[in-house]
Amino acid sequence: LTEEFARIAWLSRLFSEGAPSKGITLGIGDDAAVLTPLSGKWVWTIDACVEDVHFRMPWLSGEDLGWRSYNAAVSDLAAMGARPVGALSSLALPANIDSKLWQGIARGQARAAKVLGCPVIGGNITRAAQISIHTTAVGQVKSPILRQGAQPSDEIWLVGNVGTAAAGLAVLMQQPESKWDAAMRGCVHAWRRPRALVEQGLALNGQANAAIDISDGLAGDARHVADASEVALVLDEHALERAILPRVKRVALGLGCSALDWALGGGEDYALLATGQPRRRPAFARCIGSVERGRGVWLEKTNGERIAVQTGFDHFAK
Amino acid sequence: LTEEFARIAWLSRLFSEGAPSKGITLGIGDDAAVLTPLSGKWVWTIDACVEDVHFRMPWLSGEDLGWRSYNAAVSDLAAMGARPVGALSSLALPANIDSKLWQGIARGQARAAKVLGCPVIGGNITRAAQISIHTTAVGQVKSPILRQGAQPSDEIWLVGNVGTAAAGLAVLMQQPESKWDAAMRGCVHAWRRPRALVEQGLALNGQANAAIDISDGLAGDARHVADASEVALVLDEHALERAILPRVKRVALGLGCSALDWALGGGEDYALLATGQPRRRPAFARCIGSVERGRGVWLEKTNGERIAVQTGFDHFAK
Repeated sequence: LTEEFARIAWLSRLFSEGAPSKGITLGIGDDAAVLTPLSGKWVWTIDACVEDVHFRMPWLSGEDLGWRSYNAAVSDLAAMGARPVGALSSLALPANIDSKLWQGIARGQARAAKVLGCPVIGGNITRAAQISIHTTAVGQVKSPILRQGAQPSDEIWLVGNVGTAAAGLAVLMQQPESKWDAAMRGCVHAWRRPRALVEQGLALNGQANAAIDISDGLAGDARHVADASEVALVLDEHALERAILPRVKRVALGLGCSALDWALGGGEDYALLATGQPRRRPAFARCIGSVERGRGVWLEKTNGERIAVQTGFDHFAK
Repeated sequence: LTEEFARIAWLSRLFSEGAPSKGITLGIGDDAAVLTPLSGKWVWTIDACVEDVHFRMPWLSGEDLGWRSYNAAVSDLAAMGARPVGALSSLALPANIDSKLWQGIARGQARAAKVLGCPVIGGNITRAAQISIHTTAVGQVKSPILRQGAQPSDEIWLVGNVGTAAAGLAVLMQQPESKWDAAMRGCVHAWRRPRALVEQGLALNGQANAAIDISDGLAGDARHVADASEVALVLDEHALERAILPRVKRVALGLGCSALDWALGGGEDYALLATGQPRRRPAFARCIGSVERGRGVWLEKTNGERIAVQTGFDHFAK
């Protein structure tokens, strides 16, 4: 219990550093955090990161883990076009965890909180058999971008990279570190240190008709938009191929994998997928297809053939 | 994945039943839930309930587990004197979990949500080695009751029971069900089905100077109030003995345990501890001691002797 007390005090100090965020009246230290709502609406999400499900400990440092779990949660706010306000962290740690490791996790969270402008204002700590981090985040927005606004004649916009983190994960699973080349190292870094696209999400707000963050994979998340908007999303294979980073293609070639499969199925880059009218496309967004009447997600091959894209689902509110 | 999809659809239907809550603009189904803040402030908490740490599966049904984890989270809102708005649930389930069990958990959450007026408006589902439920809840309040307001000359108020759930837990750990008498069954029920004291928390607001929910045990949570308010809390042993239910004393006698230890150390009744001026004490609150200048938590024995109370800490924003 003395140890618990020391941990809590350490975490409270760590997370209390830095300037307070607008809208936060009381952070760590009472039964609940206290927020004073600004004008507009609040968006609210929760995301989990579980050892041996979402990651294996040899694959990343504590700092990586804290950073990526935090960015994954805040990415949902980015997808709504919201500005982060704050987050609570529910941390589950094995009883015998090394203090360097849990402190590293917290440092990664604190670093992400600072970079994303989304302070940790409370949380919970508990024992568990495996490490897991459940992060809940709140953002403020005048009017959120939803999944349901996609219109026929919209373009499909990709913001950020797809397939890079999936390539990194494949490297981590298949190649000893001694064999990594520069391309592999770049992809592994993308998996370990994804970045929630908060500024891009804010800039999409008012321009895009629909948006989602790509956490389940481009295909699956496109399907969420198609279903919510009751339209068909037609991805252009040529445009998508061009969106894949050269390093990803090099790694795919080396490992005998398909970069396109990584781009369609890999979710952990936390890119944003949006739809909108061509004249409203921001400079940072790449057009990778079009919205049409109909249903489902399709891939238009370079020869004009269209194939239905396999999609999967992982979450119940995301 | 088809199975995941079916689970998500089932949960979405279950949690979407019933009347929508004020302040909720969009529930399950997008990247994040959308809230439209009412006037005043928002309080925000997260709480975890982990298999083999907070409970063992033979001790309770899925419905019990869903119910008690939900009430534990909402209890933090009650302690701030806030009205619940909604909650997100991050559920971690073993891959091979029986569908009756996870559906029972969700039904227990849904039932608690209805009774507490705090709908589940989103969440996350993931695999894990052990069952765990991380519940984050938001409440609305004009001005929250904090831990830091206790004043010398305040009474210490207890709302609800202490020691009953701890007695139930002792029964679950030490006695086969075939040997339970009525007192034991009553205590086990208290452990399985605690109730967040939302209405009492609302009624304390404006009357109490400080409040906390008793989730770590009366001694530990009294210490939180004493530390935050920079005062001493002196518990009256005689008054505390009288606050312990007769069934708890019977069970203690039968198991050779101390009912007073359960009352001081057991947290899972989710009673409320508050302090306030005698003339402001609500009818439902029982006076169990007094606030004085000084520091720490003390137990005043019936012979007038004062002993320092051992306290423990478990959480970092709790």
